[in-house]
Amino acid sequence: MRGTGAPRSLYARRMERVGPSAIMELLKTTAGGDYISFASGLPDPTLYPADLIRGIADLVLTADGRAALQYGPAEGHPPLREYVAEMLRTRGLTDATPEHILITNGSQQALDLTARALLDPGDGVLIESPSYLAAIQAFDSYDAHYHAVPMTETGADLDQAAEALAGGGIKLAFTLPTFQNPMGVTTDLETRQRLAELAAEHRVAVLEDDAYHDLRYEGDPLPPVTALAQNPWAIYTGTFSKTIAPGLRVGYLYAQPEVVTRLSQLKQITDLHTGSFTQRIALEFCRQGHLQPAVTRLRDTYRSRLAAMQTALEEHAGGWMRWTRPQGGMFIFAWLPEGMDAMALLPRVMDAGVVYVPGKSFFPVDTGANTLRLNFVSADENAITAGIATLCRVLREAAP
Amino acid sequence: MRGTGAPRSLYARRMERVGPSAIMELLKTTAGGDYISFASGLPDPTLYPADLIRGIADLVLTADGRAALQYGPAEGHPPLREYVAEMLRTRGLTDATPEHILITNGSQQALDLTARALLDPGDGVLIESPSYLAAIQAFDSYDAHYHAVPMTETGADLDQAAEALAGGGIKLAFTLPTFQNPMGVTTDLETRQRLAELAAEHRVAVLEDDAYHDLRYEGDPLPPVTALAQNPWAIYTGTFSKTIAPGLRVGYLYAQPEVVTRLSQLKQITDLHTGSFTQRIALEFCRQGHLQPAVTRLRDTYRSRLAAMQTALEEHAGGWMRWTRPQGGMFIFAWLPEGMDAMALLPRVMDAGVVYVPGKSFFPVDTGANTLRLNFVSADENAITAGIATLCRVLREAAP
Repeated sequence: MRGTGAPRSLYARRMERVGPSAIMELLKTTAGGDYISFASGLPDPTLYPADLIRGIADLVLTADGRAALQYGPAEGHPPLREYVAEMLRTRGLTDATPEHILITNGSQQALDLTARALLDPGDGVLIESPSYLAAIQAFDSYDAHYHAVPMTETGADLDQAAEALAGGGIKLAFTLPTFQNPMGVTTDLETRQRLAELAAEHRVAVLEDDAYHDLRYEGDPLPPVTALAQNPWAIYTGTFSKTIAPGLRVGYLYAQPEVVTRLSQLKQITDLHTGSFTQRIALEFCRQGHLQPAVTRLRDTYRSRLAAMQTALEEHAGGWMRWTRPQGGMFIFAWLPEGMDAMALLPRVMDAGVVYVPGKSFFPVDTGANTLRLNFVSADENAITAGIATLCRVLREAAP
Repeated sequence: MRGTGAPRSLYARRMERVGPSAIMELLKTTAGGDYISFASGLPDPTLYPADLIRGIADLVLTADGRAALQYGPAEGHPPLREYVAEMLRTRGLTDATPEHILITNGSQQALDLTARALLDPGDGVLIESPSYLAAIQAFDSYDAHYHAVPMTETGADLDQAAEALAGGGIKLAFTLPTFQNPMGVTTDLETRQRLAELAAEHRVAVLEDDAYHDLRYEGDPLPPVTALAQNPWAIYTGTFSKTIAPGLRVGYLYAQPEVVTRLSQLKQITDLHTGSFTQRIALEFCRQGHLQPAVTRLRDTYRSRLAAMQTALEEHAGGWMRWTRPQGGMFIFAWLPEGMDAMALLPRVMDAGVVYVPGKSFFPVDTGANTLRLNFVSADENAITAGIATLCRVLREAAP
């Protein structure tokens, strides 16, 4: 008989390290429930400029409908590449030209394409611990071997990084230096400089995720790691997801033109190109001068929410919890007293109507049981104040 | 000194088989030139329903702007999954439910995700020869080993396929049974049935690309290969690119729910999810009843263009060229007399103002020097008639 008997798995070996995301499963469980959620990785959709985008979509289809609906180049819509290059020059990538830019489906695709282009099974990845979960998952899927370096309040511990690099076998250093997800920490200039130099010296690629760049609520921007040393393998990624809207799926990467050419070949194989219509919407949004006002509005709102969460934490968690003080981004990271387990305690907190993400998932190695990540942008200030009070009450009751 | 000396390549081994596409390079060369082009793989953008989409984009952002601009589930927008499942039930995939559907960035991403999930380096892929170039490129990037089976006027030569399958080492059979790109051939029912049974018997995955399904100008639809045997590893892919517009980048795949779950995990790593806005545009376009009228309009136009090309070929190439007689799709495939080289002759034809794609690129193994692919949908009837006359004149002058 055909097709019967014990099922044969046809999956490739790389699928052994691909699995459900604990966070995505958690978010599915809580979707539709009546929670104050600090769990999501999402911005507040009430702040998305739907009205502006409606007018712009209309304009794009009226002025340029055929091209906006047609196939396009793998590298991206040329004027958008030009706009992004100009924008990145102001961020310190002073040599950026359109040939340095590849447009991607959000910056997640930029991370995945880079990993696909560079990582053979077993290749070493120097990674901050904790780090961005979906990047870890992408590296996992290419069977990366991690050299995890603890994050401090000023960035990764570079003494440990230097030791790991000296040991050899590392091909790629992944860093999220600005308002890191999940820590909220910003890597300081000295650490950026040293990381850039270490990678160049050891001829290791740098993959720098700068998704939160514009969400700065205090202080001045720092130059990208990518700009701080001559490294032909430094790749910088960014996105319009946090400043215009994630549902458009428009991100980008900067790399040397030879690298962009190779990554574009891979992009073409992957999905031909990023949406012609949504690329034009992002471009027109920027050209009409809406980006800066949108960023200012987000900053003002999110700054107050961050302050509300900090105030509530001071009040309810001072002295027994530890947490980070971000200058921007979307997340605060917190440590419960040693021995407490944020995953095990989550059901009790959820029973009280609040959700967070246990921090364990963000560590590339098995640690962090007593940590949690708190999104401070998706609830409003009243909900934050009430939610943190509840969360701290339940957790404190469970403290040793 | 830092970062100096001989450059070290950091590319993964898989990049050795990733390179520029001869076709994309050709299209770049001819872009903006004054050619009658039979070269592109593109539909005619003057037929895209830009006005309808303008109204629908407005409606989507008015009614559902927050969700349309927010992140969404990796599997796709639930009502779109439901709509696609319903549509595929009418195509013969009678068990299709939303859980069988994954929404992708065009069907190219469905092909790439499948290859990524299944292919270890050196795994065998049974492939039609010639076949769809960007699928070959995706399989190349996962270091596939090809078992190429010649296409005939009724589909792949299944005696050769059976022999290859009996030899072992094959994990995946890739087929494009309806209006194949580049051949234009439709695999007949008997061959579909036998292919489905052979794959199930040998426990080999089937990857079926049905991108051209709706572009049928004569005859009745045939059931998908995926529907013709019990095979837990049969995966069927389709797209709205050919019926609504490719610039939206909305495609889909059908597979058993367990497989969809695994492919969705991979999709999330790749780019989180397909655009929330464009998925809603595609859904609303269908819900408002525009899909069938759009398909009818495309069929009427493209049917006449196909007839014009067939008539011109009869007149100018009868007796010395051989070509296919498609019932649908976008391409006619042609053979020059043995010994002629379509690549070498292309510059002469371009000097006369006409472009085609040499067929060689579409063969997974090194053959097909005397073949060419002709797109019959992107030029209008007058241009087709004039272009084929010119093309045949120049090629005939070069014939032995």
